[in-house]
Amino acid sequence: MNKRKIASIIGKIILIEAVLMIPSLIVALIYGDGDASAFLWTIIPALIIGLLLSHIKQSEKRMSSRDGYFIVAAAWIIISLIGAVPLYLAGGFESYIGALFEIVSGFTTTGASVLTEPADLGHGIIFWRSFTHWIGGMGVLVFVLMVMPMENDNSMHLVRAEVPGPTAGKLVPRMRTTSMILYGIYAAMTVILVVLLLMGKMPLFDSFCIAFGTAGTGGFGVNAAGIGGYGSAYLEIVIGIFMLLFGINFNLYHLLLLGKVREVFKSEEAKVYLGVVTLATVAITLNILGQTQSFAKALREAFFQVASIITTTGFSTVDYNFWPEFSKHTLVLLMVLGACAGSTGGGMKISRVIILVKSLFAEIKQIITPRAIVTVRLDGKTVNKQTLNSTRIYAAAYLILVCVFTLVLSLDGLDLTTNITAVLACFNNIGPGLGLVGPAANFSVYSDWAQLWLSLAMLTGRLEIFPMFLLFARSAHE
Amino acid sequence: MNKRKIASIIGKIILIEAVLMIPSLIVALIYGDGDASAFLWTIIPALIIGLLLSHIKQSEKRMSSRDGYFIVAAAWIIISLIGAVPLYLAGGFESYIGALFEIVSGFTTTGASVLTEPADLGHGIIFWRSFTHWIGGMGVLVFVLMVMPMENDNSMHLVRAEVPGPTAGKLVPRMRTTSMILYGIYAAMTVILVVLLLMGKMPLFDSFCIAFGTAGTGGFGVNAAGIGGYGSAYLEIVIGIFMLLFGINFNLYHLLLLGKVREVFKSEEAKVYLGVVTLATVAITLNILGQTQSFAKALREAFFQVASIITTTGFSTVDYNFWPEFSKHTLVLLMVLGACAGSTGGGMKISRVIILVKSLFAEIKQIITPRAIVTVRLDGKTVNKQTLNSTRIYAAAYLILVCVFTLVLSLDGLDLTTNITAVLACFNNIGPGLGLVGPAANFSVYSDWAQLWLSLAMLTGRLEIFPMFLLFARSAHE
Repeated sequence: MNKRKIASIIGKIILIEAVLMIPSLIVALIYGDGDASAFLWTIIPALIIGLLLSHIKQSEKRMSSRDGYFIVAAAWIIISLIGAVPLYLAGGFESYIGALFEIVSGFTTTGASVLTEPADLGHGIIFWRSFTHWIGGMGVLVFVLMVMPMENDNSMHLVRAEVPGPTAGKLVPRMRTTSMILYGIYAAMTVILVVLLLMGKMPLFDSFCIAFGTAGTGGFGVNAAGIGGYGSAYLEIVIGIFMLLFGINFNLYHLLLLGKVREVFKSEEAKVYLGVVTLATVAITLNILGQTQSFAKALREAFFQVASIITTTGFSTVDYNFWPEFSKHTLVLLMVLGACAGSTGGGMKISRVIILVKSLFAEIKQIITPRAIVTVRLDGKTVNKQTLNSTRIYAAAYLILVCVFTLVLSLDGLDLTTNITAVLACFNNIGPGLGLVGPAANFSVYSDWAQLWLSLAMLTGRLEIFPMFLLFARSAHE
Repeated sequence: MNKRKIASIIGKIILIEAVLMIPSLIVALIYGDGDASAFLWTIIPALIIGLLLSHIKQSEKRMSSRDGYFIVAAAWIIISLIGAVPLYLAGGFESYIGALFEIVSGFTTTGASVLTEPADLGHGIIFWRSFTHWIGGMGVLVFVLMVMPMENDNSMHLVRAEVPGPTAGKLVPRMRTTSMILYGIYAAMTVILVVLLLMGKMPLFDSFCIAFGTAGTGGFGVNAAGIGGYGSAYLEIVIGIFMLLFGINFNLYHLLLLGKVREVFKSEEAKVYLGVVTLATVAITLNILGQTQSFAKALREAFFQVASIITTTGFSTVDYNFWPEFSKHTLVLLMVLGACAGSTGGGMKISRVIILVKSLFAEIKQIITPRAIVTVRLDGKTVNKQTLNSTRIYAAAYLILVCVFTLVLSLDGLDLTTNITAVLACFNNIGPGLGLVGPAANFSVYSDWAQLWLSLAMLTGRLEIFPMFLLFARSAHE
């Protein structure tokens, strides 16, 4: 293990986080809610520690893939620990654990909150909370690689551990350029969204915060009323569409920019994704028609909620706790499914589910024709054994972890529906669940230790299990 | 596809089912509750159809493994359709679907019931209901192979499709002898249990029915009061211990008979199984202590419920709906886990979970040391790739099917806890779930189509997914 190298990279990450807090500090100074000092008291020590660590003299040794996983897991924990400090210092949270839960929820783009009314916080804090969604959406390490390049080998190890989905995609090799292109697309789409929100008469501050929450598929709002509070069908539709757009694999946008339209239309994942959205929207619309009494309203509500849940954003315009059971069950299924690989969304990822379902049919085909060589194909190409294996192991790990997270959480005494959906909402980085953690409620129903446990679930889910596992396996070994 | 061969085997199965109904007919005649004619009107046509089909002239062609899967799936559906007839004819069920649900629940050893008070039925019907547990526990096809031998190749195909667990075990090759030995152990243990129950002053009729339900890890009782109704701690403990014994891989008993004690103690699955039972019992005992106020009572209740759920029997002595959440969550986890492979119990099977967990750690090891050849070992032997693959695909299929079964079930309008635990209870062949299908309730809360849907879940779970899948894949092709 390359300790000096790791320390130096962690130092750079702390440095960058300190710099990324400056816009929030400026917002705090502009609005003058008294939360500016909380940022100053975080930024200054972080800058000092970051500078010291990043200047540790490095050996020439290469990083192993193990080091890559370790750095990614450690980096996410450290930025969360530091990111929670201003929230705690500014007040408004009962404990540091609550602030930590909130900021882990921010970076992992979960959007689950322990606050009853976020608007009670200062503007700088609200801005920071939403901005962490934007940072976390594309990945913290990818950002670091963009601004501070390193050798290709090393960066590959980091990206493999951080980028969601079964494969890192073919765009990876030229890491720095790719990161910049993807971040460019991300930033451009965010700006377009801000403009569209402003056109819908959303206040400037809200527009930025909501755009961050949409782009990162996070889900933090600026007040308890949420998106429904703006009372604008235009805003609902714009945000709904943009949630869906941010849930698509960014490589497709890159291909579009390169003019490779045919390749884009070949993407099975995008097709299944849009198919599921359409199907679920229609099914829920018909199911809730009796409650809403207007088809247009039912369609709008169904579309927004489906887009929000499948992309794991977690915004809501209605309390779907009061929807018929079938619609609620559909939402839970969408929670498990998640968005496309290589997007800012969480969950199991559509492409993984496609590979699993195809594996199932391949197994059946193998039973029928034992001598045939049966392969699984995606987008017209054979999926390699390594990917097949990891995908299946991921599914098994997913099943086991959801069970374990839920069982331990039950010690806090809440009911099964609340606990299962809380774990799914955290592990898949969605935000609200059902029952006591439904869209109109918040996670303060859980005690401190349970919030810490759910924070771990959010991080494990965001990093797709293995980095966190390795972190603990590693400390157990040494 | 070898249609003549398949028809002839199906004919033999119908014939055997008719013969297996005769004891119930005799019981009906002895007690004279008026249900004897219901059996007669089933047995006679079944005998005729069975004889006709089984005498179809067969070609010499060998069966394929595909035929094996097909026969197993078809056989289970047909014996259920026929087995439900006496229940329907004797009255007491609102519809034939209800009777079908009940008998599928019997053969699959689920033990879920649509009846509020089984004691309202005739004694013959109650006996038949419980006897189907005993038949289904060891497998219908295994029984057929024992009484009507066929070529080794063909029987292998059938046994692979019917015997639960990741591998058919090393005892398979000499099929007929093995079947007889295993059935011998099964019958002997059942007889011992009947004697022990009689010694505990349980009535003769009840002793047989409860012994069938315990041996097959089924769970049908003779009245709504269940095991708790006998008010005997002795009976509770005897049944608790025997449920555990029937949840152990029967190959271990065979090895014991052969004096290979050391091999028995090498079984990782048995160790994990007993470890989980101990751990869960202790955890629940401590958790419910506040409710029961007596340590001995808490321990007894915890042990019985744990043994009942992990072996997927489904007997209950308390309504655990009123237990603290942690205990309820633990039970749900045990539902997923299930008993040992090669036992009469259902669920995911302990050995599968062991293989999955070890796969997970192997994957982590592979990430740390990319060049090493990492293997998964069970009982000191390397698990082959084929088994590893099937196990992982099984886990994925399990996850997908539980989601799909639950989603469709939600159209019936019940809540998430009820639906999820109903699907788990049926798919894992346990019996009672939580919420509206808890141990004090029954499945009549579901409408006819939902009962049919859950019957499909029971069969799919009992046959471990693939035979049922192949049946539908096949009819879709032709």
